[in-house]
Amino acid sequence: MKNNIVQLEKFQKKTPYDSLKEIFNNDLDKVEDFTKLKLSSAVNLIDQMASYQLNSGGKRLRSILTLASSKITEYRGEHNIHLAACVELIHSATLLHDDVIDNSTVRRGKKTSNVIWGNQPSILVGDYFLSRCFEIMVDVGSLEILKLLSNVSAEIAQGEVLQLQHKNEVDMTEQVYLNIVTQKTASLFGAAMKVGGCLANKSENEKKALQSYGVNLGIVFQISDDILDYNSTKAFGKNIGNDFYEGKITLPIIILFQKSNNIEREQIKKYFAQKIRIEKELNQILLLIKKYDVITICKKRAEYFSNVSSDSLNIFKDSDIRKNLQELSFYLINRTN
Amino acid sequence: MKNNIVQLEKFQKKTPYDSLKEIFNNDLDKVEDFTKLKLSSAVNLIDQMASYQLNSGGKRLRSILTLASSKITEYRGEHNIHLAACVELIHSATLLHDDVIDNSTVRRGKKTSNVIWGNQPSILVGDYFLSRCFEIMVDVGSLEILKLLSNVSAEIAQGEVLQLQHKNEVDMTEQVYLNIVTQKTASLFGAAMKVGGCLANKSENEKKALQSYGVNLGIVFQISDDILDYNSTKAFGKNIGNDFYEGKITLPIIILFQKSNNIEREQIKKYFAQKIRIEKELNQILLLIKKYDVITICKKRAEYFSNVSSDSLNIFKDSDIRKNLQELSFYLINRTN
Repeated sequence: MKNNIVQLEKFQKKTPYDSLKEIFNNDLDKVEDFTKLKLSSAVNLIDQMASYQLNSGGKRLRSILTLASSKITEYRGEHNIHLAACVELIHSATLLHDDVIDNSTVRRGKKTSNVIWGNQPSILVGDYFLSRCFEIMVDVGSLEILKLLSNVSAEIAQGEVLQLQHKNEVDMTEQVYLNIVTQKTASLFGAAMKVGGCLANKSENEKKALQSYGVNLGIVFQISDDILDYNSTKAFGKNIGNDFYEGKITLPIIILFQKSNNIEREQIKKYFAQKIRIEKELNQILLLIKKYDVITICKKRAEYFSNVSSDSLNIFKDSDIRKNLQELSFYLINRTN
Repeated sequence: MKNNIVQLEKFQKKTPYDSLKEIFNNDLDKVEDFTKLKLSSAVNLIDQMASYQLNSGGKRLRSILTLASSKITEYRGEHNIHLAACVELIHSATLLHDDVIDNSTVRRGKKTSNVIWGNQPSILVGDYFLSRCFEIMVDVGSLEILKLLSNVSAEIAQGEVLQLQHKNEVDMTEQVYLNIVTQKTASLFGAAMKVGGCLANKSENEKKALQSYGVNLGIVFQISDDILDYNSTKAFGKNIGNDFYEGKITLPIIILFQKSNNIEREQIKKYFAQKIRIEKELNQILLLIKKYDVITICKKRAEYFSNVSSDSLNIFKDSDIRKNLQELSFYLINRTN
């Protein structure tokens, strides 16, 4: 059965993500050119690091959301390009700091900036990205959008600190997990969508619907990211077990802990209480995850948010873009990279 | 002679800094209360770290500048309080990141946040401060000020990366040094002053004069900071030789290198090329600094900027505040903490 699904996926010509990327191909190029222009600096090292970061082959999902939402809301203008650059810059700044914080060595199959240039300039270039992002927003001139995105930026930092605060807590509740994820990941997805509504001066209701699509999509995205860390292959540029080795409590571990018997719980607790975790222990966790079918349960949880996400867009006129966005909500659950 | 000066200083009742602090005592309390309110977070660790940072006894020089310039320009309103909080927050965010970058353990005689809570939350709380700062600016609602301060924030990061880029370069020119200092330190002093002019809707000329006062004062401040690192006692909460141990090229080293003979130059080069520097080597440098009277030369250099700074304010009506600001430009050269 599982093999059939894999076969089926191979024969499907285009994922909703691919379709959206195709639709916004030109605009994404504009976003990239604009970002390069705005990040250019008289300081060589910044230029080098910025261009490395920009060419690191991210999914650009957040900028696609801004472009898509400004299309759905029939915005006519160029500020959607500038703000798509902003949401991607906020994300990039976060990545630069995250990789320092997590001591990451690989991202998207490439060496991280902190490995190449060290922690010091990575922290500073993260600050630089964020500052330039605010400069762009100021040029766009909408106080509503400035408020939205500066607020999101504070949310992200709070979510990450909350995550640190609960590090190694294997008995974390799903509610706390959801708080963390909503702040650190989903809030930016929500804002990326809402921006289109703000630009097009849509009603509060429509702006909230766009934001709801984004926030719930962001939760799906993070759950699937958590799943990938216990259910992926190295071929996709992700190291399996990263979260485990870092002692991060993610949804698969929370669910596993809920399902396990007392002996297993003690074992899981012990692993996460240790300063360092090893491959043998990861393999033990992977066996338990299989035993309790944890990945399937996580996907079920994600499905709830996919449904909420997708349905949020029903108030908008039917269109190719809306259809692709709605399919994206479900597609992300099973993404493989 | 030196002893006489010290004696004299002891008998002087009030420094211009003390006078300014006294004048703005009430306003500084308001700034503090407002900052606390704005930084409060549902995440405990952020609240803890924020209150530690706010109670760490900084000089609040930057917020005093904003309060003073809005007084000089006869601004009537409350936004000066909010923006004084902003310039101090940008500074605090920078400190949090700097202490991680420099691996600092002590600041203002107290343990740094990275020592108490680790690098990870220190980076994130720095991001949080900056984001909240932008939220405050958005609430104030002046796009001119938003542009000014987001630009300064990018300047600071660029200055710091430039400094990293030139780390250990003992033959750095004074021009490069000045670029670094202007960006990483003086730009914020300049903006802190200009903000008052923007709030009071002053002419471009007056705004530029305020900014010029601040930028040049900031250069004096940084030069005196550099001097203190080779000419201070531990009693003031600064560890002598920090910059040396970190391999930072500051004005005393640049001047020393210019004045030294070939043998001494090779020695200085060697020290800064090493991964680690030790106390014996610091003492050697201190002897050379004495031999060539480097501290006096540095103070002479600073005097130039003190004069430019002070004279910038001459276009404004004479007042107690103006007088104190102008004296501050010279007082800072010889500050002892």
